[in-house]
Amino acid sequence: MNLPQFYIDDIIKTALKEDINYIDITTDLLIAENSVSNAFFLSKAEGILAGLDIACRVMELSDRSVQIKKHFRDGERIKKDDIIAEFYGNTASLLKAERTALNFLRHASGIATYTGRCVEEIKDTGARITDTRKTLPGLRALQKYSVVCGGGFNHRFNLSDAAMLKNNHIDACGGITKAVEILRSKIGHTATIEAEVRNFEELNEALEAGLKIIMLDNMSTDDMKKAVKITSSRALLEASGNITLENLRQVALTGVDIISIGALTYGAGEFDASLRFA
Amino acid sequence: MNLPQFYIDDIIKTALKEDINYIDITTDLLIAENSVSNAFFLSKAEGILAGLDIACRVMELSDRSVQIKKHFRDGERIKKDDIIAEFYGNTASLLKAERTALNFLRHASGIATYTGRCVEEIKDTGARITDTRKTLPGLRALQKYSVVCGGGFNHRFNLSDAAMLKNNHIDACGGITKAVEILRSKIGHTATIEAEVRNFEELNEALEAGLKIIMLDNMSTDDMKKAVKITSSRALLEASGNITLENLRQVALTGVDIISIGALTYGAGEFDASLRFA
Amino acid sequence: MNLPQFYIDDIIKTALKEDINYIDITTDLLIAENSVSNAFFLSKAEGILAGLDIACRVMELSDRSVQIKKHFRDGERIKKDDIIAEFYGNTASLLKAERTALNFLRHASGIATYTGRCVEEIKDTGARITDTRKTLPGLRALQKYSVVCGGGFNHRFNLSDAAMLKNNHIDACGGITKAVEILRSKIGHTATIEAEVRNFEELNEALEAGLKIIMLDNMSTDDMKKAVKITSSRALLEASGNITLENLRQVALTGVDIISIGALTYGAGEFDASLRFA
Amino acid sequence: MNLPQFYIDDIIKTALKEDINYIDITTDLLIAENSVSNAFFLSKAEGILAGLDIACRVMELSDRSVQIKKHFRDGERIKKDDIIAEFYGNTASLLKAERTALNFLRHASGIATYTGRCVEEIKDTGARITDTRKTLPGLRALQKYSVVCGGGFNHRFNLSDAAMLKNNHIDACGGITKAVEILRSKIGHTATIEAEVRNFEELNEALEAGLKIIMLDNMSTDDMKKAVKITSSRALLEASGNITLENLRQVALTGVDIISIGALTYGAGEFDASLRFA
Amino acid sequence: MNLPQFYIDDIIKTALKEDINYIDITTDLLIAENSVSNAFFLSKAEGILAGLDIACRVMELSDRSVQIKKHFRDGERIKKDDIIAEFYGNTASLLKAERTALNFLRHASGIATYTGRCVEEIKDTGARITDTRKTLPGLRALQKYSVVCGGGFNHRFNLSDAAMLKNNHIDACGGITKAVEILRSKIGHTATIEAEVRNFEELNEALEAGLKIIMLDNMSTDDMKKAVKITSSRALLEASGNITLENLRQVALTGVDIISIGALTYGAGEFDASLRFA
Amino acid sequence: MNLPQFYIDDIIKTALKEDINYIDITTDLLIAENSVSNAFFLSKAEGILAGLDIACRVMELSDRSVQIKKHFRDGERIKKDDIIAEFYGNTASLLKAERTALNFLRHASGIATYTGRCVEEIKDTGARITDTRKTLPGLRALQKYSVVCGGGFNHRFNLSDAAMLKNNHIDACGGITKAVEILRSKIGHTATIEAEVRNFEELNEALEAGLKIIMLDNMSTDDMKKAVKITSSRALLEASGNITLENLRQVALTGVDIISIGALTYGAGEFDASLRFA
Repeated sequence: MNLPQFYIDDIIKTALKEDINYIDITTDLLIAENSVSNAFFLSKAEGILAGLDIACRVMELSDRSVQIKKHFRDGERIKKDDIIAEFYGNTASLLKAERTALNFLRHASGIATYTGRCVEEIKDTGARITDTRKTLPGLRALQKYSVVCGGGFNHRFNLSDAAMLKNNHIDACGGITKAVEILRSKIGHTATIEAEVRNFEELNEALEAGLKIIMLDNMSTDDMKKAVKITSSRALLEASGNITLENLRQVALTGVDIISIGALTYGAGEFDASLRFA
Repeated sequence: MNLPQFYIDDIIKTALKEDINYIDITTDLLIAENSVSNAFFLSKAEGILAGLDIACRVMELSDRSVQIKKHFRDGERIKKDDIIAEFYGNTASLLKAERTALNFLRHASGIATYTGRCVEEIKDTGARITDTRKTLPGLRALQKYSVVCGGGFNHRFNLSDAAMLKNNHIDACGGITKAVEILRSKIGHTATIEAEVRNFEELNEALEAGLKIIMLDNMSTDDMKKAVKITSSRALLEASGNITLENLRQVALTGVDIISIGALTYGAGEFDASLRFA
Repeated sequence: MNLPQFYIDDIIKTALKEDINYIDITTDLLIAENSVSNAFFLSKAEGILAGLDIACRVMELSDRSVQIKKHFRDGERIKKDDIIAEFYGNTASLLKAERTALNFLRHASGIATYTGRCVEEIKDTGARITDTRKTLPGLRALQKYSVVCGGGFNHRFNLSDAAMLKNNHIDACGGITKAVEILRSKIGHTATIEAEVRNFEELNEALEAGLKIIMLDNMSTDDMKKAVKITSSRALLEASGNITLENLRQVALTGVDIISIGALTYGAGEFDASLRFA
Repeated sequence: MNLPQFYIDDIIKTALKEDINYIDITTDLLIAENSVSNAFFLSKAEGILAGLDIACRVMELSDRSVQIKKHFRDGERIKKDDIIAEFYGNTASLLKAERTALNFLRHASGIATYTGRCVEEIKDTGARITDTRKTLPGLRALQKYSVVCGGGFNHRFNLSDAAMLKNNHIDACGGITKAVEILRSKIGHTATIEAEVRNFEELNEALEAGLKIIMLDNMSTDDMKKAVKITSSRALLEASGNITLENLRQVALTGVDIISIGALTYGAGEFDASLRFA
Repeated sequence: MNLPQFYIDDIIKTALKEDINYIDITTDLLIAENSVSNAFFLSKAEGILAGLDIACRVMELSDRSVQIKKHFRDGERIKKDDIIAEFYGNTASLLKAERTALNFLRHASGIATYTGRCVEEIKDTGARITDTRKTLPGLRALQKYSVVCGGGFNHRFNLSDAAMLKNNHIDACGGITKAVEILRSKIGHTATIEAEVRNFEELNEALEAGLKIIMLDNMSTDDMKKAVKITSSRALLEASGNITLENLRQVALTGVDIISIGALTYGAGEFDASLRFA
Repeated sequence: MNLPQFYIDDIIKTALKEDINYIDITTDLLIAENSVSNAFFLSKAEGILAGLDIACRVMELSDRSVQIKKHFRDGERIKKDDIIAEFYGNTASLLKAERTALNFLRHASGIATYTGRCVEEIKDTGARITDTRKTLPGLRALQKYSVVCGGGFNHRFNLSDAAMLKNNHIDACGGITKAVEILRSKIGHTATIEAEVRNFEELNEALEAGLKIIMLDNMSTDDMKKAVKITSSRALLEASGNITLENLRQVALTGVDIISIGALTYGAGEFDASLRFA
């Protein structure tokens, strides 16, 4: 899985414009134009790598002649003090790209690492970790890609590609049955329908309507267990709402199929890595 | 302080494109076109508000006829269960803008709240909290604005607007004295020069070169104290590197003037808030 | 269902830039600046309306003070000589927007009308008409929206939102069974999988793999009938390849569920309508 | 004649963004990253080629390392089963670019082929085929280029580059004579003036005003003949309005100089071609 | 004649982004948010106004609630101390838009004023003043519009809208006759052909080829006179090359029809005007 | 010092779009596709070079295969008849890029040359020449870069990167002392504060407030001398307002440190250079 070039190049240009504006007043005035250096990305923690391709592309867009040697690939585990990638090229170009490249690498690897920790926590259960739409503007693709690097799965990408019946939709139609009926008469055959249910009554209604994916909205783990029993494999059950590394395992042990965690993309923090000049 | 309209509108459009693509397959097919609703942003925690203007603008860009009543302003403290703002308008429009609006509000308020906690922690010292360039592509202005809402200060915005002598620059010129001399002969009169020093020798060299801002790079608090004594108010001292809420107070008590914290913008997490339909 | 404002405004600006460049050399030099006119969109054929909102928005973006009265809504049938919408405003503004507005209206209504004819042709069968990815750059959303206005359904919007196993994918994995197994282990729970089958052997393999959507690739109607019998409602069958208004009914009568027609978006031609000044 | 690189790359990026969004969920998950393939564009009909450069550039923008061998050039005649171009490169890259590349190739060649048929139809007359401003947003340059590939000519590109007096302009000025007088006093010396005439009276007025290009608006072929006689080579006559392949020859035989056909760009349909893997 | 809204808004946003970046550090921190002011554009010289609409639109885009009263229109003469337009609105908004608005107003009025001076200089001759393609990126439309405000005329806008045979084209084809023959067989009927001639031989060749516009490239005024005599009204003659206010009148007196002056757009300097707070 | 690639490429694409639109109707139709030529930029005056990199990049973006040999670097002095750079490549590509490349080269070198003349004029004084924010939309970075090439210095780039107290700010706060106090409590530690003073009273207030940069707004040279004496090196003094080559030396001799000249960027005119084919 690769992020498309047009997407990568666009967010890199946005980032470089913000960070450089028109000159790097320090580097441009102090570093000799023909100076060359060796440098490398150094891991300062243990985790899962993501965003290396994009970080290297920052170097390339800063200066086409920079030589790059990658030691790892996105999705691989890295340890503290690992050299992630090496660079050889114009010193000023490397310095000017440094912060932007690191911002991408650290953010993406932070998400992958946090996702990996969640996946590890429940690896002996049948549940899957999935992301949400709680992402930052312009970064959804990068963030969802990083979740996959960490071993997680992607929920729908946007409001066009799958239907999700939330309370407001259900109430507006007078119930799940009616809402599903209307939806089925209108949406394309490749679009799936998922419904959020608040209680067992709604769960039963959703099952009877033949839905194959049902979200248990903010239920207690006891209720989740009961829901799993009621459903009896007729549909995939997704647990959602305030799930963190602390309570994740308990949720997974209820027997739900999917656990969606908004914090994967907004609460992961950065992975610690830096650029060192040799 | 306000973020400029062109910036706000651009990142909102980017976010809406990502989240909606071409239709909201659920809302567009289920919610009656003429249905109207009351809804409100509900605070689910205690903290400092930021991003309300931008979140409300999301509603407005989704539907020009939505009526908005703000109960708080960016920078104000909010408590759990506070109603932050109220909306009245087309139900489908509100539903389609919900996630995007919340993503902005929660991210910005998360930064403001975390910054506020840092500021609170050291309020009886003379030190100031400041951000860094560890921001996400396209979001630097929003993130730095949120830091200000939380009571923090902004470091330089980009590589053009102030010089920062890092080790590589210093080494390339053969020392701080020489580097400062070159810079002064070339940069504009409104651009400040800050230097990163690794030890007392460099600190003394920087002071003798007449620098008015000096960053103590990853020094121990004991060394910071000594640096404060050496400097004796001849320059502002900025502490930087691995500073968190836990060790922040200790750092401030050394007598440094500025404490820059990358985690303000990358490690704050989101502030918990949601959109409720009345 | 509505196209989002940001999408509409973007393609309109693209169109106006192309058509006007920097002045309308004729109108700007000849029409008095304060001249006002009444004008209306006149239907010159029978069909289904689409693109009216976007065409009216062209007028609005050309001049915010133009008054608009719509007589029909997208998706409604119109007859020859129907007045579709009326405009009152600055004459020069109306003239400058005319061609661009009509290009949108005629293209969208052409697709809706052609789709409607296809839908009509098979209305007594259980089959649905659906579009493809054979669309023009920048216009996919508008074209797919127009298909819906005409009574058709949308296939997947892009390569991210549903999986479609084509021959190359199947062959690369060593068969449908294996391909489906890999896909299921990796894709999100809201993404559907459809497979293209070339013969009954592949059809059986797809059914056994539990696929719920299967495309019959360029099969004869006799083979389609046989496929319907084999499938026996275990999956939705999609007929695809060289289907036109001429052979459409025959295909529908085979009992397939979905008929995808690329020509909806590339072969519909324009609907005849013009702007008349009163 | 070549379309400029900046234009080509822009519409390709627009198309790829629409078609791929952030991943090709099928190809990215199933095709081995290092798999390479041979593939080729196959013509499935007889016609005139256009859009090959742009289709090949899609492959290149999808993957810079794809090797391309073109067997034909835009503007050349191709037959059914001709191999138009060959590709060798990363299998996933080719699959992800396939639909977008074909959408360009088929649309452009469709226009060129249809134009070629029109040109053929009247090749023994002195008349020229020309396009109109009935084009699609963002595609005007591509569509007009395709018309040229098919042997047709381009009418004005936009409202800035030539004046066209339509009825509204003429009526607003109180007649052709007055309108032409005003225009001549204001427009640049390189801009031509064409007028639309509805009858012989207006034709005579236009000729007396010294106009060198006159459009006969929706005239019968009998009236066109009479107009040709009246004009007696004093100006170029352009026939316009509801001209199709069926009545085209009759129109050309009237002796008009130019025949403008909107359907060249909106009614040509696609040329049938596909990508085959060897 | 009006510049289109999409063009105006785009260059204003570009300008505001450059000038404001993310905050106006002075105004945002010092001016009370609810402070309102009266302000006005004051003319500090005599000249011809241009760019007022765009300058006022800067104010409007900075703050939709600013009230504007224009005292003059583009193209009108203004004197020193004239109040060009008045504003009432939020003080901070006015201050933040000031520089950008003035940069547009001063640049456009500078061009109009300089053009007006050229036009005045030759008003009793039959010659017209026209601009060239020596314009600045992104500003061609604004600059050519300003030339018209000053009483000048526009040469071709870009390389697509009229043919200009320069020496390289002529030499490549083996002479004007051949070049014109090729061009006529290929270009659209609304595109004019102009040729640059270096001597009387070429002038005669161009006249015999039936060209209606001929540029005299860097000829002496004596040679221009001779060219006028030779041409004897068979074509428009355009004088070009190193023409300034100083020698302009002499050139016009030779009897040429058109005088193109690159300095209109690159050498006019700014018109002196400022924003004053009442 | 180098302008960043993303900035350069963006303004070049803007310029090429304006100048070419969709074809170069003359070159595309007349010049053989495989024709190659040698060409060179020829200096036609004496001055300082700027914009050569960007002009050469225009050639490269027009055609990646053009070979370029630069004889000078930005910032170097060139004489009349110097060959600035040589090109070898496709004739049509060179012709299509010619005007755009020259527009950049001539504009940038014009600014550098004019700046150089100002710098020369006062080289024996201690004063520095600096630019202002009187720049054109989209061109600020290029213009400020050209000032540096000419030996000048850059004032602040935008409203975010340094504070400048103008009369309105001062009056709104009730004086310089109060304004400075507020600003210091809010702005980042790397942002400098400059104040505009109208008289000696304000000058003294600014000095007492500890400001290190003070602008003397439209003072007579006699008053400037007095201000220099009063200041006695406690702050940098910037002279501003109606300073031209004529009175520049007189201003410098007053002892001020900085002289800001808006005309550097708006009044320099173009440097005369052309593209010659060998």
